[in-house]
Formats: sequence, C-alpha cells, structure tokens
Amino acid sequence: MDFATRTHKLDSTFMDEILKAATIPDLISFAGGLPNPELFPADAIREASDKVLSSDGKTALQYNITEGYGPLREYIAARYYGDHPEVSADNIVITTGSQQALDMIGRLFINPGEGIVFERPGYLGAIQAFYLSEPEFHLVPMLEDGVDVEAAALALASNPEPKLFYGVTNFQNPTGLTYSLDTRERLADALRRHETLFIEDNPYGEIRFSGEKPPGMIDYLGFQAISLGSFSKVLAPAMRMGWLCASHEIVRGIIAIKGATDMHTNYLSQRVLYQFLIDNDFDAHIAATIDVYRDKRDLMLRMLEKCVPAEAGVHWTVPNGGMFTWMTLPEGVAALDLLAAVKERGMYFIPGVPFYVGAADPGTLRLNYSNSTDESIVRGIEILGETIRELCA
Amino acid sequence: MDFATRTHKLDSTFMDEILKAATIPDLISFAGGLPNPELFPADAIREASDKVLSSDGKTALQYNITEGYGPLREYIAARYYGDHPEVSADNIVITTGSQQALDMIGRLFINPGEGIVFERPGYLGAIQAFYLSEPEFHLVPMLEDGVDVEAAALALASNPEPKLFYGVTNFQNPTGLTYSLDTRERLADALRRHETLFIEDNPYGEIRFSGEKPPGMIDYLGFQAISLGSFSKVLAPAMRMGWLCASHEIVRGIIAIKGATDMHTNYLSQRVLYQFLIDNDFDAHIAATIDVYRDKRDLMLRMLEKCVPAEAGVHWTVPNGGMFTWMTLPEGVAALDLLAAVKERGMYFIPGVPFYVGAADPGTLRLNYSNSTDESIVRGIEILGETIRELCA
Repeated sequence: MDFATRTHKLDSTFMDEILKAATIPDLISFAGGLPNPELFPADAIREASDKVLSSDGKTALQYNITEGYGPLREYIAARYYGDHPEVSADNIVITTGSQQALDMIGRLFINPGEGIVFERPGYLGAIQAFYLSEPEFHLVPMLEDGVDVEAAALALASNPEPKLFYGVTNFQNPTGLTYSLDTRERLADALRRHETLFIEDNPYGEIRFSGEKPPGMIDYLGFQAISLGSFSKVLAPAMRMGWLCASHEIVRGIIAIKGATDMHTNYLSQRVLYQFLIDNDFDAHIAATIDVYRDKRDLMLRMLEKCVPAEAGVHWTVPNGGMFTWMTLPEGVAALDLLAAVKERGMYFIPGVPFYVGAADPGTLRLNYSNSTDESIVRGIEILGETIRELCA
Repeated sequence: MDFATRTHKLDSTFMDEILKAATIPDLISFAGGLPNPELFPADAIREASDKVLSSDGKTALQYNITEGYGPLREYIAARYYGDHPEVSADNIVITTGSQQALDMIGRLFINPGEGIVFERPGYLGAIQAFYLSEPEFHLVPMLEDGVDVEAAALALASNPEPKLFYGVTNFQNPTGLTYSLDTRERLADALRRHETLFIEDNPYGEIRFSGEKPPGMIDYLGFQAISLGSFSKVLAPAMRMGWLCASHEIVRGIIAIKGATDMHTNYLSQRVLYQFLIDNDFDAHIAATIDVYRDKRDLMLRMLEKCVPAEAGVHWTVPNGGMFTWMTLPEGVAALDLLAAVKERGMYFIPGVPFYVGAADPGTLRLNYSNSTDESIVRGIEILGETIRELCA
C-alpha cells in the first residue's frame, strides 16, 4: 500500500516488542521503561475518581478546552516553574503523555529537511516522533557529564541553523546519564548565540537518588527552552498525563495542532489527577518511589559487579536517578547476539540499536531496574553475566 | 516565529470558541457539538471505575499496547462489525477520540498535494486534521440525500487519483443530512472503479430517530472502507474514546504512527469504558439518548416553523438523527452579521464558514439542539427569528 513518505522511517518493532514483552508472565525483563506497578497508588486514584464523578460528573465527562484543565495547569506552573514569574497556567498545555508533546513540537516547527540537534544515543520515542516531521538530525555524543558541548556548538553553527535541540538532561533514557552543571552552563552559552529552541524532556527529573536538583534549561534560557514533563514515571502512565511549558506564541501554535489532532487530553483523567494531587502528599509518594528505585539500582549495580567479568572490558553507567543503566560490551560482542542467547534463558533486555539515528553502536544495551522484583534482578543479572562470559570466551 | 508550512492553514479560532463558549454560563448556545450532560451515566462510570481500580489497579494504571485493550476491541468488533467475518479485534485500533483517527489517516496516506475527496460543507474537525497533511481537497456538494454522486465520480476520476474520500454518512456534521440507500449504492459503484479509500466517519449513526440502520460503506466496499466510531456522542466525550476499523495492513501503519505520537490511548479509561459496557444496558442508554434528542429536534423544528418568517426564504434541514440542523439564510443576509446581532441578545451559534474548505456560503449556519434545555431552545429560536426578521427588513 502506498503510505506517505513521512512514515517510511517509522519502526514500531522495538517499542511494540517492549510493550508486548511487558505483558508476558514469567519473563525476566529489563526491557521496558516501565515504572513499578507496586508503587501505583491505585486506592488513592480510585478515591479521587469517586470524588470527581460524584461531585461533578456531568462536567468531568463533557468536552473541555484544548489546553487542559485550568487548576491542573496552575498546579504544574506553581510546582515546577514556581521560580519563574514569567510562567503561568497559560504557558502550560496538558498533553497525552509527553510523547504527544514531542510529536506536536516536531509538527509545529520542522519542515522536511530542517535540523534537530539530537543526543547519540537518544530517546527512542523522540526519534520515532520526530521522524514523522522528516527532519535532518544533527547527532551529538552523550558523554559521562551529559551532551558533548563542543560537538553541540558545532551542530548549532550549521547553516541553516537547526530549529530544535532535543535533550533529556536528567537520568537520560537510554544511558542514565545526567548533564553536569558545567555542561548546562556551557550549553546554554552556546544556545544563546542562536535561535535554536532547546526541548528539555524531563520525565525522570524528580526521581533523583542523591544531591540537589540542578537548574533546568529554562533557568538559563527562559522561553528559548520548551520544558516537558510527565506524571507517567512518578504516578502512573496509563492515564497519559504529560505537559509542555513554553512561550505564549508557541503555546498558541501547539493548541491549534492539538485541537486538530485530538481536541483535548482525556479530561476525566485530568480531573482525577488534579484531585489526587491536592488530596494526597505527592512529595511523600515520590520519596517512596525514589527509595525503591535507589535500592533496585544498588542491587543491579552490585549484581553487575559480581556477575559480569571485569576483565572482559564490559562497562556500564552509574545513574543517579531514573530507571536505566547503559552497558557497553567488549569490541566484537554484539548486543543482538547477547539478546538472542539470554532470551532462551528467560531474560530480556533492549539492545542499543533503536536508540541511534543512523549507524548504531552494536555493542550497547539498556537495562531497566525499576520494574523488576529483587529476585528477578538477581537472577536476570546472573543470566546476563553467565551469557556474556560464554560469548566472550 | 517560523512555524512549519503544514500548520499555516490551521485555524483553531472557531473550534476554540465553541469549546470556550460551552463554559460560559447563561449563554444560550447552539454552537457546540456537545452531547447533553444530563444523559451522562456518571454513577455507572464511577462504579465501573471503582471496580477496575479495586480489582486490577496495578495493571490498569500501567503502560499497555498501542492498539488498545483487547476485550474492548473484541466488543467493538462484535457490536459494530458482527456481520463481517473478516473483521476481528485485530482490525480495531482504539484512538484518542475519532479525531485522532482522522489525523493519523491523513499522516499515513497523504503526501503534500495528494488528493482527498471531501464533502462541501464538511466536518470542521476533519478539515483541520487533514490540513496538517497538506492535501489537495476535491470538494463535492452535500445534497438532500447525501453527497452528490455525480460530482464524486468526477472527483474520483482526477489524475492522479485521490487517495482518500472522507464522508459522514449519517446525520452529517454540520448539515444533519444522511446518505440515502441509493446514494450509498451508487457511490460504492463509483468507488469500486478506483483505489481510493472511503473514510466513513460515523459518530452519530446510533442516534437515529426513525427507520432502520442503513448499511455502512464497509458493507459495500469491505476494507476499501476505513470505518471510524466514537463513544463521545453516545456515552461521554471527556474520556476521548474512539476507534478505527481497517485492513491489517492499514492497522499496522496506524499502530506505528500511534506509538510514535502518544504510545497508546488512556488505558485506564479503556478499562473503565469496557467495564461500563459489560455491566450496563448500553442499548437502553442509547435509546434514552435518542428519545431526548428526538424531542429536542422536534421542539427546535417547531420553534423554527413558528418564529422564522417563511416568506423570507430561510431554509433548514430536517435531520433524522444526530445533533444538528443546518440553516440557509436568504440571499444577501450573512450568518456572521446575524451572529453579531444575536450574541448581543445572549444567544450563540456557529456560522457555516469553518465548515468550508476555500470559499464558503456566507448565508449558512449550524444549530445544535442536543445540549440545550427546552427553555433555551424556545427562547433561543425566538431570538433567532426576531433577529432574522430585523435583518431581512
């Protein structure tokens, strides 16, 4: 069938497999980017839902405005942008997950062939979303302290200038790496010399294991940054509740696109989310999430130290938050071969391939620790270690 | 700001105004396409929500597969396509309202400049969604018995052949008109001579005031038709629950796009919707909706007969279902002037302009009867009648 050119680079295989693998019982999977369902406050959400539907069901079930529920936008403006007097509820749009924000930003700005600076490796979902707008990607490497600023400065100086720069500044998906303060400052300096907008995607920022929250790119750049957030990782993904914070002009453009593409985000869930947020101690919930994920990270790292042969030259990142560590295998060992071998032993991960635009590093893979029991982490990393040993032998 | 070309024709003004006007108290508004909130089964939805969150909260709050909840897709396949052995749950994708299906179909098929055959006047939301894919529209008039088949046959014979044909076959938005059996048959004959896919958008089909349900275009065309449906008009719009039914090949393409744009439709609401459907008598709920809307249509038509001067040459359609009648004013009287005058008297409607691609008929307007009290219908049409009288004088 003759599908449009914009769809030709889409590849749903990996995303699909991740979501499908998540529904297979008895598989030890480090593949997904799924939060741990044991943390979902199902009872509190049920109570919030009861309250909304009992007290205001007729409004909560009706169509509503495209930008989203006013009090929820006010809550987000105050909680996440309280230091910014220029940010009000009118700068916030509630999106169907922050995934939808990525898609809409691509559509709003990118004519086919126009530039997006992008991390290498970078977020799979952003690659897929942006593909639909047919950009030219300018790839800049992720280093231990965040994106390579010198490479970024070169990319920004391209002619024509890239329109967008996409980055996950905290506990990046897939690497778990975080932009250091120095990286943020130098990157902001480079960006200020251009018109390029920085899209700061920050779904994991609140899941920080130690240290202080660093400034966001909006703190350096104001509305030269578009800030994205999500309740998927800190509360529950099924409701698809994300947001975008940007200048009024950009917000107007996004609202026009959103109206044409889904009218508005599920309004009942917006109401339920807001009710949950005002009736519960959200910070305590996040603190509990952090404790669980920190323990799981610690366990996975300890097991890696124990089971993966140091002499073989395997490396992995040490994330200070979020859900992932990123492994690099020794030269000549391919993650796809490793995956085939561990799958037969009932374990599953996601190879690095889909996180690269163009040529991938075949020796990379992503390991998720948030959504496994401790027993699965122990057994899964044992399987991984044994299999790497065999492949390296 | 330098927004992408695909956004330049978007105009959210009217859609936005409709949604905003719906939130102004004391305004008599016939503008929206809103269902009547008095009919929303808020208690039953609360019970369904309680049940899902109490019994399976951890799954219901997690990410899930892009195509949507299996049992809900099975329900839709059985209820709406039970006569079609070729249709199973695998042909159904749950979308964020049927608005999202429109957008995704445009993106899947239309390269800039490729053709879509489109009703004149036609659904505002479809115009906006398709604009984003930059098609060439081939406009065919709506007649009393549905789309003008001869004009449609000419449009289909364009070189290159249009890829899509979009139509609202039952109680069309904005005109309230329905394709007759003869129109359906002759249109199907014309379509069979081409590769063009017919997009049958059918959000109002179940709200039929009299007579038998006619065949859908899928009954004539099989998977040369893509069938769209929605729970927004027969249950509640806030949850944004729509679907698309198409061939496996098209479904695969749609899933790839949907994964990239919002991962999946709100899964909690899919679960709640399904629970509602199996725990309640949905047909009885729809029958009650039909009774209310039929009465409101009758009242609006009686009031129009009474208050609008027949001698002035004002015409309106007599819808056999759905939510709208469509009025044509006498030569030289513009709906925008009428709107300005009635607004000052506390009444509001939507002029025909946004329902036209390109040149509009300035003397047309849409009147919604589903979302007004009887008192508002009486008073609103009195205001309309008086004001038309004055403008014609």
